[in-house]
Amino acid sequence: MTFYFIEMIQFDCDYCEGAHPLIMELLMATNMEQTALYGTDIYCDKAKEAIKRAIYSGGYTGAAEPAVHFLVGGTQTNTLAISTLLKPYQGVLAPATGHIALHETGAIEAWGHKVLTLPEANGKITAAQVEEAYIAHYTDASAEHMVQPGMVYISQPTETGALYSLAELEAISAVCRKRELFFYVDGARLGYGLASPDADFTLADLARLTDIFYIGGTKVGALFGEALVIMNPAIKRDFRYNIKQHGAMLAKGRLLGLQFLRLFTDNLYLEISKGAVEKAMQIKAVLEECGVEFFFKGSTNQLFPIFSTEILNRIEERFKLDYWRPGEKEGTHCVRICTSWATRQENVDALISYLREVLK
Amino acid sequence: MTFYFIEMIQFDCDYCEGAHPLIMELLMATNMEQTALYGTDIYCDKAKEAIKRAIYSGGYTGAAEPAVHFLVGGTQTNTLAISTLLKPYQGVLAPATGHIALHETGAIEAWGHKVLTLPEANGKITAAQVEEAYIAHYTDASAEHMVQPGMVYISQPTETGALYSLAELEAISAVCRKRELFFYVDGARLGYGLASPDADFTLADLARLTDIFYIGGTKVGALFGEALVIMNPAIKRDFRYNIKQHGAMLAKGRLLGLQFLRLFTDNLYLEISKGAVEKAMQIKAVLEECGVEFFFKGSTNQLFPIFSTEILNRIEERFKLDYWRPGEKEGTHCVRICTSWATRQENVDALISYLREVLK
Amino acid sequence: MTFYFIEMIQFDCDYCEGAHPLIMELLMATNMEQTALYGTDIYCDKAKEAIKRAIYSGGYTGAAEPAVHFLVGGTQTNTLAISTLLKPYQGVLAPATGHIALHETGAIEAWGHKVLTLPEANGKITAAQVEEAYIAHYTDASAEHMVQPGMVYISQPTETGALYSLAELEAISAVCRKRELFFYVDGARLGYGLASPDADFTLADLARLTDIFYIGGTKVGALFGEALVIMNPAIKRDFRYNIKQHGAMLAKGRLLGLQFLRLFTDNLYLEISKGAVEKAMQIKAVLEECGVEFFFKGSTNQLFPIFSTEILNRIEERFKLDYWRPGEKEGTHCVRICTSWATRQENVDALISYLREVLK
Amino acid sequence: MTFYFIEMIQFDCDYCEGAHPLIMELLMATNMEQTALYGTDIYCDKAKEAIKRAIYSGGYTGAAEPAVHFLVGGTQTNTLAISTLLKPYQGVLAPATGHIALHETGAIEAWGHKVLTLPEANGKITAAQVEEAYIAHYTDASAEHMVQPGMVYISQPTETGALYSLAELEAISAVCRKRELFFYVDGARLGYGLASPDADFTLADLARLTDIFYIGGTKVGALFGEALVIMNPAIKRDFRYNIKQHGAMLAKGRLLGLQFLRLFTDNLYLEISKGAVEKAMQIKAVLEECGVEFFFKGSTNQLFPIFSTEILNRIEERFKLDYWRPGEKEGTHCVRICTSWATRQENVDALISYLREVLK
Repeated sequence: MTFYFIEMIQFDCDYCEGAHPLIMELLMATNMEQTALYGTDIYCDKAKEAIKRAIYSGGYTGAAEPAVHFLVGGTQTNTLAISTLLKPYQGVLAPATGHIALHETGAIEAWGHKVLTLPEANGKITAAQVEEAYIAHYTDASAEHMVQPGMVYISQPTETGALYSLAELEAISAVCRKRELFFYVDGARLGYGLASPDADFTLADLARLTDIFYIGGTKVGALFGEALVIMNPAIKRDFRYNIKQHGAMLAKGRLLGLQFLRLFTDNLYLEISKGAVEKAMQIKAVLEECGVEFFFKGSTNQLFPIFSTEILNRIEERFKLDYWRPGEKEGTHCVRICTSWATRQENVDALISYLREVLK
Repeated sequence: MTFYFIEMIQFDCDYCEGAHPLIMELLMATNMEQTALYGTDIYCDKAKEAIKRAIYSGGYTGAAEPAVHFLVGGTQTNTLAISTLLKPYQGVLAPATGHIALHETGAIEAWGHKVLTLPEANGKITAAQVEEAYIAHYTDASAEHMVQPGMVYISQPTETGALYSLAELEAISAVCRKRELFFYVDGARLGYGLASPDADFTLADLARLTDIFYIGGTKVGALFGEALVIMNPAIKRDFRYNIKQHGAMLAKGRLLGLQFLRLFTDNLYLEISKGAVEKAMQIKAVLEECGVEFFFKGSTNQLFPIFSTEILNRIEERFKLDYWRPGEKEGTHCVRICTSWATRQENVDALISYLREVLK
Repeated sequence: MTFYFIEMIQFDCDYCEGAHPLIMELLMATNMEQTALYGTDIYCDKAKEAIKRAIYSGGYTGAAEPAVHFLVGGTQTNTLAISTLLKPYQGVLAPATGHIALHETGAIEAWGHKVLTLPEANGKITAAQVEEAYIAHYTDASAEHMVQPGMVYISQPTETGALYSLAELEAISAVCRKRELFFYVDGARLGYGLASPDADFTLADLARLTDIFYIGGTKVGALFGEALVIMNPAIKRDFRYNIKQHGAMLAKGRLLGLQFLRLFTDNLYLEISKGAVEKAMQIKAVLEECGVEFFFKGSTNQLFPIFSTEILNRIEERFKLDYWRPGEKEGTHCVRICTSWATRQENVDALISYLREVLK
Repeated sequence: MTFYFIEMIQFDCDYCEGAHPLIMELLMATNMEQTALYGTDIYCDKAKEAIKRAIYSGGYTGAAEPAVHFLVGGTQTNTLAISTLLKPYQGVLAPATGHIALHETGAIEAWGHKVLTLPEANGKITAAQVEEAYIAHYTDASAEHMVQPGMVYISQPTETGALYSLAELEAISAVCRKRELFFYVDGARLGYGLASPDADFTLADLARLTDIFYIGGTKVGALFGEALVIMNPAIKRDFRYNIKQHGAMLAKGRLLGLQFLRLFTDNLYLEISKGAVEKAMQIKAVLEECGVEFFFKGSTNQLFPIFSTEILNRIEERFKLDYWRPGEKEGTHCVRICTSWATRQENVDALISYLREVLK
């Protein structure tokens, strides 16, 4: 058996590799153990404890105890969280570019709910928009003929690398509580958000401010896996029935437990996220130094520089980037450059020196 | 970090361990490669080719080319196959003990379809029952007020280890084609079925006789994964949209490709299945020798002997079996004994000699 | 324009005509009035008050105030009540011959829920069966992999004309409250049940014992229409959103209000039901007198006598009956004979004297 | 029993009354007849023939024969048509102000499908927009992660009274056929569209150009009812199963048949629509004469004039209009004035002379 290796260095995506070597090591070490099934095993238990510890040690003091469930992927997690919590006639408020609005092939609708999109800026919406949408609904004479807002969905960081500040999260949370809307945060890239130099929020804040959120593993070191954290006591009961019904209960659930146990041991989740963000910041610094402009601003592991056709062609001779969209000026292009836990410093160095050469 | 080990020898389940060591080896060897996402990578391509080769080399000569998709788990696979193929007002005929009827928390119903159960014997239904159900529907004056049969679902082997003979499969297939019903085979434990000394069917037969079937990985050597094989050309188009909508498109799809590639290299899938079934047959021989009766008959990797309370208590001092149900006589119990690709010969030997002692 | 008239006298169905003349009169009298839409008009308000009065005047003294909604048909009403109240992973316990189980083309499943059928006798299930099903679910080690019972559905009277006694209703209600199951009664033919000489329950009892029930209009004097009565305060909020989402909010909602207003004025609903049942009892008496046996026993507006082929052929020369099923003895047939609010005494007399002649 | 009469003259809505007197007359005349159930009766048959005749006599010469089904209301009809025809992963392209997008409490989503909204002008979208949306989908690298367009939905006339010209309908139809999209026309107010002085399309054109459309009765003379006309042969099979599953099969289906039979006898549908539009045009002429501007332009039975606060207050002393939205200039208001088959000429005269007085 021989295998194919891609030779171009990829900066187009943060989930092109397998898992962090320490995770693979743990999977190997435990491979032949016999454990309980469907997430009721000892490793899932330990992983849940580790995540709770991370929340409490971050300063969480709320009365509600986090309930953690491990799931395989993001669309599955979003669909579960949203369809389980909404009443049949309710929809979820989301930025128009939110993952659930655009890139889940209508999974939310397949489970019966409308995504009520709001205009966004850099992928973000505001507390004021939520309040406005709420009021608009209830002051409409035809309210009963319209989908009732029942939840707010945001991504932290957003799909284009922006972060909500703590103040923004608190404001959205306050509106949600005032208006009896669930507040759900999609943390597919949460590690890279927490590791951003601009982050002023913690896991403990998410626990305090949301009803439910998830800590992404797939894009942050795991082979796969997302840890859904339910804070609102009213929505914990019988949640595993929903998981099974969604085809989302992994038979060998320990695979998820083991991965999150390792990610939340010795601070691995944050450490590898920091490494990725630092590498992105190195690239960003060079781009800024060379006068390159950015389509979306941000300080996580994703950069969205704008290049001319000529420059882009030259870069793409040696590096695989992700074409995002045309720039606003004719002949310009916004691309995505991603780093991840797997990005090697030598590749960053190669990219940086090549960029310097091409952009000078 | 210290880990917990279960010390009692488990014969209760065929998916308590991780993956076959050769699969783990391949996952390790390729871990840091960068590949395409969502199942569009080179390993998925190769794995699909390997599965097709296994079908064609088994003698399949049909015009329809198999289309293979890799999914994470059984409930997900069943839900996808069934909900995608049925029209909204159609249901799926299934044995009353079928996995979709009993143990998927209503996932088929959650996607809108009724499971139309038929009485079963050892988990099996017959072509005659299907024909009868079809005719009963269309001769009912209220047919439009009833769910229309649109598909037949069976498991090969069944949940209790029985096999359909080739003649039985051909008969069901013939009714399905005559009556325009889709024929779907759940192969969660297909390897153990193919490896049975009583098996007279092949992968090629399934390809020839069904519209769609799946080759189970989760219970046969993989960490997780099922290979859905679509034969009916009418149902191939756009299938990946359905996968994504079901939250079933694994981001790092190569993990599935790699596992099935390895399983279908050097005949591993069949070899490890054979090993498991041989071990089950060793145990079965001893049980028969000692005059033990069986609740369900079968020759795959699952045995369902009946023990008295006293005997069962003694066995359970040293071995973990799966309590299935009370026996028909007062004070008797049907338990499940499973072997798998992971069962060690020394544990089988230990069980056998212990059984001889206890049962003499 | 000429119209076709069916000449054979129909006893096969209780909804073959339009509406009671007094209802038609009211529809005519108000036809050109301009009213509010979607059930918010003055007639709906009055009709709701009239139904509440009927409940309270029957002796209801509970704290929960009935909330009434008018819907067009039975399947619509059942689907709304059940799908709105159940959690996604819950199913509804129902007799195997229940309307929702057999004759709604899978509408309950289309809205995501499994009908959990129980064996029935004359269309009825017992409190003990409900308790047993509840316990069986929660003591199953795989409970999370199975649909959780969330509600009990019965019809009063049943589809084959049987009545639950007050004691039976009380027993089911008690189990439901103990086990946190919703209790829902389908009253498609409720009038004929209330008017039965054997009825020992009242509207007030249904209000006291159920969470939700409906008072059927379609089969009891209205052109169409069912009055859904919600008793459980926890399920009243925002119910009109559900109605609209189900396509069940009649634009000119007053048509429903007017019909129920008339039915609940001057006791019309009960009076016409009594007339129908009395006519059925006249026919029953003659059948008994002539030694005819019955497949289902009952004392509402439906009779299920068993005839030989020869007798049946003779009857069907002049009267249209509803063929129900073969009898248990070769060459015998169970048919349904229905009376309704619209049945004319002269037709009953004609049937009776013909039966006497044929059966002598 | 005494009844309440609203005294203010209503011009706010076109479905505030019951049914046209000729329809009521027919319902009365046939009330005590016994007919077949669920839309299989003689009147439904005759009504279907009458509608087909109207299509053929309008010049339809296509090979596909229209299949007609009668349903109770618009949301029900839209949901049925759309959810039945789309594949699970497909959505329906619609104007952002389309009824299905805004005013059906997410019924389309409840049945699993996303409404893919397009920017509209006066409620209309163009063939070019449809083509663009189609191409945008299929050229997106993430197409499989997005909802696939499967159908185009428009209203003729639109919710704000605008009409598609024949050329516009032909252009949309051509794109749909080229791109394999179903084309569905919501004709809730179709009569008023056909009766517009600007209408250059016919029923025969709709039959020729669409896959499916409906002829609205609820707003055009009936108590309730919509006639769904299926043209595409591929979507006719088993449609009645869908109707039943949606809770949309009226038990006394003849009520729908009778109403449409009368509407399509002696050209009543078009005659009463013409009367309504003529009255709207009388009002429009006076408004134009007085220099009033319109928020939406149109020539059907709905007018959308803009009034100052002062003028509006004065009008509302005597007439009930429908407040639509604030005008673009501060202190101005767009209201809706509707006529219908039920509008009396004396009320139009009263409104006109009052408007002349107030606006002079």
